[in-house]
Amino acid sequence: MFDRVTIIGVGLLGGSLGLAIKSRWPGCRVTGYGHRASTIELALKSGAIDQAAADVGASVKDAQLVVLCTPVSLIAEYLEQISAHVPAGAIVTDVGSTKESIVHEGERQIRSPAYFVGSHPMAGSEKRGVDAAKVDLFEHATCIVTRSPQTDRDAADKVTAFWSALGMRVISHTPADHDRLVGLVSHLPHIAAAAVARLQTPKSLQLAGKGFEDTTRVAAGDAKLWVDILLDNRKQIVPSLTRLIDELRDLENLLRVQDEDEIELWLQEAAKVRGDYVSPSKPNAG
Amino acid sequence: MFDRVTIIGVGLLGGSLGLAIKSRWPGCRVTGYGHRASTIELALKSGAIDQAAADVGASVKDAQLVVLCTPVSLIAEYLEQISAHVPAGAIVTDVGSTKESIVHEGERQIRSPAYFVGSHPMAGSEKRGVDAAKVDLFEHATCIVTRSPQTDRDAADKVTAFWSALGMRVISHTPADHDRLVGLVSHLPHIAAAAVARLQTPKSLQLAGKGFEDTTRVAAGDAKLWVDILLDNRKQIVPSLTRLIDELRDLENLLRVQDEDEIELWLQEAAKVRGDYVSPSKPNAG
Repeated sequence: MFDRVTIIGVGLLGGSLGLAIKSRWPGCRVTGYGHRASTIELALKSGAIDQAAADVGASVKDAQLVVLCTPVSLIAEYLEQISAHVPAGAIVTDVGSTKESIVHEGERQIRSPAYFVGSHPMAGSEKRGVDAAKVDLFEHATCIVTRSPQTDRDAADKVTAFWSALGMRVISHTPADHDRLVGLVSHLPHIAAAAVARLQTPKSLQLAGKGFEDTTRVAAGDAKLWVDILLDNRKQIVPSLTRLIDELRDLENLLRVQDEDEIELWLQEAAKVRGDYVSPSKPNAG
Repeated sequence: MFDRVTIIGVGLLGGSLGLAIKSRWPGCRVTGYGHRASTIELALKSGAIDQAAADVGASVKDAQLVVLCTPVSLIAEYLEQISAHVPAGAIVTDVGSTKESIVHEGERQIRSPAYFVGSHPMAGSEKRGVDAAKVDLFEHATCIVTRSPQTDRDAADKVTAFWSALGMRVISHTPADHDRLVGLVSHLPHIAAAAVARLQTPKSLQLAGKGFEDTTRVAAGDAKLWVDILLDNRKQIVPSLTRLIDELRDLENLLRVQDEDEIELWLQEAAKVRGDYVSPSKPNAG
């Protein structure tokens, strides 16, 4: 599919991507760039990348596919650094958890005859770093490939085929729809989990059970990464958060007036959504 | 410890309790009462109870320990029905998820020379019914035994020893403290999970991953049971819910003004609480 792939940022996602590519296409040459020498060394040793590039510009110079695997807040900067070096015909994509601002920047910096396509493979864990990389991290998980009016169709088709070949279920959305939907189903649960965790005390935690553990698990995630995600997607998150607060306010009022029937309906609607939901068996998705 | 135990309500908890008692003390005679004949038959067949009582008054007549294992909303009614039949020296306890109103009612109905002590073994699952009963449901989980100014010390000590002998980690609280702490660490997560579930759409659920699955898992729980719990504990839940809404409101404002440092602190406090939390290895607790 691609003979030469460059991965910029070789952490959990970048490292796992390298392992998956080498496993699927042993002949593909994977170049890695990372600003920490120790990480690059580990990536080389584990076989996640075949060679390391000395600087980020050089890393992309004969790539057919470039995948930006850095935290969301660094993607714009790297796009700028590589834009003059990406060869004609190459496709640049990323793995960021937000898409509208990244795709906007990608389409501004990477121009025909090179192409930018936004990706969001929904795989990960609370763990970080190349030592946590796994060859099957992406298997059976969902990946969103974005299509905006500016997106090149052929490039988007190729990126879709790439993630599919790594075992992902690929769904297409506009960058704005992606951000709204992921805001609802991923960023909002993170915020709710964190707010619940913030209210606990040593005494309440003594009584914590599996319900608390599961409901708040994601709140242990890296605060720095999540600041970037929440700020970058604030336009979509703020209205969803307002709606979440409204839902809670409604229940608060129903409890005050002890409206048993309406409380039951409120809970039943939630139980129906959650009870009807069937996990598409993707052990690594997050 | 007790030679004759009566279990009123033989569902998941009552059935598991019978199995655990018979496993720990094979000589103990367990009497069961349930209003559904099919449930009682299953409980007899599985060995969770040794004999069935025809009516609830008769079920307690020579018991040394009576454990009320019905939904929270039925406990007051059963306390009234058994109060005239509980023999001198017997101890009555329960497994309800709320304690202040139940203990108040228990101490009103069950009087010396019989005793009421409130219990809350924090074990359960989304499953219901005696078919889901498990002999080890209580093992390694936490149990709160309440002590009010009216609680008989000897009776509370015996109930504590009883749950401990079944493998539980027993913690003592006043009924009001129990309700406040469990409101924070169990009822509030349930509400947050349900509110998040309520906002999802078929399109957002297509993008759901492990984060959504774990965060909202408890929201699939039985709405009828939860109405009772939330209404019964509304005095403690409403102020906690107000604080949860305040936390979310704070974050909403921080996102609006893009205060990166304060958002990071907000998330870090949550990550610290959740990251520091160590599960006391209780696979069945909930």
